[in-house]
Amino acid sequence: MKIQVVKSVLDANERIADENEALFDQKKVCVINLMSSPGSGKTSLVEKTILNLKDRYRIGVIEGDIQDTCDAVRIAALGIPVVQINTGGGCHLDANMIREALSGLDLAALDLLIVENVGNLVCPAEFRIGERAKVMILSTAEGADKPAKYPLIFQKSSVMLINKIDLLPHLDFDLAKARRDALSLNRDLAIYEVSCRTGEGLDLWYRWLAGQIDKVVG
Amino acid sequence: MKIQVVKSVLDANERIADENEALFDQKKVCVINLMSSPGSGKTSLVEKTILNLKDRYRIGVIEGDIQDTCDAVRIAALGIPVVQINTGGGCHLDANMIREALSGLDLAALDLLIVENVGNLVCPAEFRIGERAKVMILSTAEGADKPAKYPLIFQKSSVMLINKIDLLPHLDFDLAKARRDALSLNRDLAIYEVSCRTGEGLDLWYRWLAGQIDKVVG
Repeated sequence: MKIQVVKSVLDANERIADENEALFDQKKVCVINLMSSPGSGKTSLVEKTILNLKDRYRIGVIEGDIQDTCDAVRIAALGIPVVQINTGGGCHLDANMIREALSGLDLAALDLLIVENVGNLVCPAEFRIGERAKVMILSTAEGADKPAKYPLIFQKSSVMLINKIDLLPHLDFDLAKARRDALSLNRDLAIYEVSCRTGEGLDLWYRWLAGQIDKVVG
Repeated sequence: MKIQVVKSVLDANERIADENEALFDQKKVCVINLMSSPGSGKTSLVEKTILNLKDRYRIGVIEGDIQDTCDAVRIAALGIPVVQINTGGGCHLDANMIREALSGLDLAALDLLIVENVGNLVCPAEFRIGERAKVMILSTAEGADKPAKYPLIFQKSSVMLINKIDLLPHLDFDLAKARRDALSLNRDLAIYEVSCRTGEGLDLWYRWLAGQIDKVVG
């Protein structure tokens, strides 16, 4: 009985995600679903990405948070349209929340829409929102055992950014193990080692993302 | 309709949590529900705590994970009874999972039972398991904005350990803000600044925990 409830929720989500995806295709917007644990650097990555790409592409952001708006304030300060979704306790975004948030955005005026999910390494990976790609961040401070412990998000993502590499000299993080275990779950995963604090390594991420946007806007 | 399903799940959980709590009282076992984001240092804290207290108290552990057993292997290596709960995708432990796991433990032979929850700063805080106290970890690498962004877990916890203080020289973490914002959500929160890596600051935590155990075992 409980399983049936969960399954019907996921089925309904898939239908709405399909509708969102069709709308994004029609409007030629590249949509990225950005996921990670709390404090891995999602908002810092969005800020850096906006500063690097905003002269080439028209960018919008949807911020998913339990209840606050501090990330949306940070993004709005960059002059970018941003819509806040407050889940009111919910630990992930779903396709219906995205559909409702779209009323606050002019999709025809966007090339790239970044959706920053709620900080959580588990549930966001289960809910498609109609995105072109899921992108995840693993912080070096979290440890290299995370692919083994939270496999779904590694399986579902197209890109893993290993963030906070500036901290590597101060940690016991096993970079080779993190890469190897993530690739054993998903051999197509693109992995970039970056520091959103120093900017190191982000050029390859910008190039990947620009390539995705170019495919969508044509 | 969806809200009713959620409410009935939480109501059922409360009933089972009450039964668990009565059993723990009867058996005189102090039960701690340990929660944090992935990679904040839960298992490291459990290891350090076992090494410090195992000569004074009889300790058992329940490990909550999505699917793997690597944390349980780490704990078992210390000669401590440990039961693994694999949630199979679920992002938190609930009272019924704990009840079922208890069949693998001899409560009469324990003074302290540490339950290491699934790594998640959101949902675990919603599900009482019959614990004496909720204890949470915030890692300095996660940033000081977490109380504002994930308030429930700060409100429900008795103790917050600020872990990885050895990384403070390499981060922009605002310790005063983290303390202030957490206390504004929960003025009774005990806060200890620690490093599970170096051992710094853990003595106050051991003293708090020993005080709780002494109250229960009498």
